[in-house]
Amino acid sequence: MTHNARQRFGASAKLKLHEKDADDAAFSSRSANPELSKSKAKALDLKRIAALIDRIRALQDKLYAQHKQKVLLILQGMDTSGKDGTIRAMFNGISPMGIRTAAFKAPTDNELAHDYLWRVHQQVPVKGEIAIFNRSHYEDVLITKVQGMIDGDECQRRYAQIRDFERMLAETGTVIVKVFLHISKEEQRERLQERLDDPDKQWKFNPADVEQRKKWNAYQRAYEQAIRETNAPHAPWYVVPANSKTHRNLVVASLLLETLEGMDLAYPEPHPDLSSFTVE
Amino acid sequence: MTHNARQRFGASAKLKLHEKDADDAAFSSRSANPELSKSKAKALDLKRIAALIDRIRALQDKLYAQHKQKVLLILQGMDTSGKDGTIRAMFNGISPMGIRTAAFKAPTDNELAHDYLWRVHQQVPVKGEIAIFNRSHYEDVLITKVQGMIDGDECQRRYAQIRDFERMLAETGTVIVKVFLHISKEEQRERLQERLDDPDKQWKFNPADVEQRKKWNAYQRAYEQAIRETNAPHAPWYVVPANSKTHRNLVVASLLLETLEGMDLAYPEPHPDLSSFTVE
Repeated sequence: MTHNARQRFGASAKLKLHEKDADDAAFSSRSANPELSKSKAKALDLKRIAALIDRIRALQDKLYAQHKQKVLLILQGMDTSGKDGTIRAMFNGISPMGIRTAAFKAPTDNELAHDYLWRVHQQVPVKGEIAIFNRSHYEDVLITKVQGMIDGDECQRRYAQIRDFERMLAETGTVIVKVFLHISKEEQRERLQERLDDPDKQWKFNPADVEQRKKWNAYQRAYEQAIRETNAPHAPWYVVPANSKTHRNLVVASLLLETLEGMDLAYPEPHPDLSSFTVE
Repeated sequence: MTHNARQRFGASAKLKLHEKDADDAAFSSRSANPELSKSKAKALDLKRIAALIDRIRALQDKLYAQHKQKVLLILQGMDTSGKDGTIRAMFNGISPMGIRTAAFKAPTDNELAHDYLWRVHQQVPVKGEIAIFNRSHYEDVLITKVQGMIDGDECQRRYAQIRDFERMLAETGTVIVKVFLHISKEEQRERLQERLDDPDKQWKFNPADVEQRKKWNAYQRAYEQAIRETNAPHAPWYVVPANSKTHRNLVVASLLLETLEGMDLAYPEPHPDLSSFTVE
């Protein structure tokens, strides 16, 4: 299978989210072969995801052994866009020793007493590690902007601070991948309704989500602007169609795999006198 | 007493350390009144230091109550230049609740597995706090440069990263004061010899210090360059003559006081309905 998810889903400086189809299934088996039945296509896609994760696992092992570079995968998206589900899918089969997740909820008093990058910097990956951020410092130019907690000037200052911060991370050995999980407003409605209707999912329902949903357009604009302002060759944004969970996982796994493939990973050279050792 | 230590000791873009007199006692009582005996002048200077710290304490209380701004005092200097002694003098009389020190020694394996700003960012002051750094991220453009662990290009990249980092701290409410404790090579010789000769100070002697001393000129150049490259209105460097401990403390206390005086500190407004409360 050839893949070039990075080219296909990379954000541009002129990104317009409303022009991006959240149902786009360009990477699915059905797109390659429209005659497949839905169920067969899905089974095939799940197999492909498993195969991608096998290859990610093999490269992650080299990343860990090499102990030189770091990978940071940032996941952002509207409520119900599938950040948790994506993380579960990526972790499935990869050693927890080399992959770590960090979730950024509403900041605590102590976090608010620091600059907004403080808590984020603490969680950046170490050498040999893949860190996945479930939300991130981008919340500080998204919810804060939409809720009017910061004005346009402060938002511009933060874009610059984020650009500087990510450039520093890149210059010190971190490969950054930023993913926006793109769902449609109708898809969110269905997922929120499902949380209300399904007794096993009601715990996930938060009335505040309905309030946020009323500001859908403002959030889309805030995302669009944040992505445009902070998209960089060393810290690229990808807009991943996420109405279909299977297709979303297929694309995110492809992005992660292509990123690792581009990193020149290799096991370190063995000790030069290896032949002189015997294990007795 | 009038003081303008910030003007007097501020570094310029053309700083040349060998033109700076480490014995300069412009702020001492004897400089104002040359007829004073040495012992009387010293007693007077110690009283003045205590008075400065009284005033720092009063402002620190407001800084803490206001819970809005932060102060970061960075101390750098050659071995034996008196970083520890300066910190002891500043702490003497100020509540440990609002002032905190962080020392940066040779990095651990875990610290080395992160970017060099990672451990530093963790220790930045919170709102209402004064943090004093005993060494800092500047070691990463000093010892690393002199020892050839980084080349000129990497050093330039780090100057830029440090400029960005400190600008972000300043933009998010941190007032930064950077102090280089300037001693002469002869003064260092005497202090190292004292450590060798005094049984109570021998524990402080480290043979590695003698090795570093051989690179005195290279260190002076590295400091000069780092100070020039990272001197900024929001993160100014001060070159403090430090051959005399008393004079050094007088100047550093003055710098800290003037900085706090420039910060518009005030107790927060009391609760509007204060008159309606009674404590029963």
